[in-house]
Amino acid sequence: MYNVKVYVTYKESILDPQGEAVRGAVHRMGFDEIEDIRIGKYFEIKVSDTDDRSVEEVIETICDKLLANVVMESYRYEIERVKETV
Amino acid sequence: MYNVKVYVTYKESILDPQGEAVRGAVHRMGFDEIEDIRIGKYFEIKVSDTDDRSVEEVIETICDKLLANVVMESYRYEIERVKETV
Repeated sequence: MYNVKVYVTYKESILDPQGEAVRGAVHRMGFDEIEDIRIGKYFEIKVSDTDDRSVEEVIETICDKLLANVVMESYRYEIERVKETV
Repeated sequence: MYNVKVYVTYKESILDPQGEAVRGAVHRMGFDEIEDIRIGKYFEIKVSDTDDRSVEEVIETICDKLLANVVMESYRYEIERVKETV
């Protein structure tokens, strides 16, 4: 069993209007020290053991096809092996 | 200057229908090893140095008031100090 964390963010060159809006709201709350906010998506995925293919392969396929729009977004992931005692 | 990463997720007891929908889609793509997907929000925040208050204080106030709905969501954050050379 694996716990996988996937982070999807807009590429640097892509404007993030949602982040801009949040930054405006934060400034209106008086927090002028906030210079920049970028908003992304975060996925916590539980993957069971499989013999056919590697977890990396599974996660990358899912990210490319479903979780991220690879034209505008980039993703990174962390895989953590979880030991199970039965 | 600080780089702060904030992760906002639904609390364990709260249903995540968006995650359920993605899990269904992933299964239809043939990835039956995916057991669970929970979807959250991810913020990358740049905070400049300030003398008045600590970064922790700023981030927690923003999270409590704006970024997370603390009734249904919990958040965690990582603060990274960035050295600037002028």
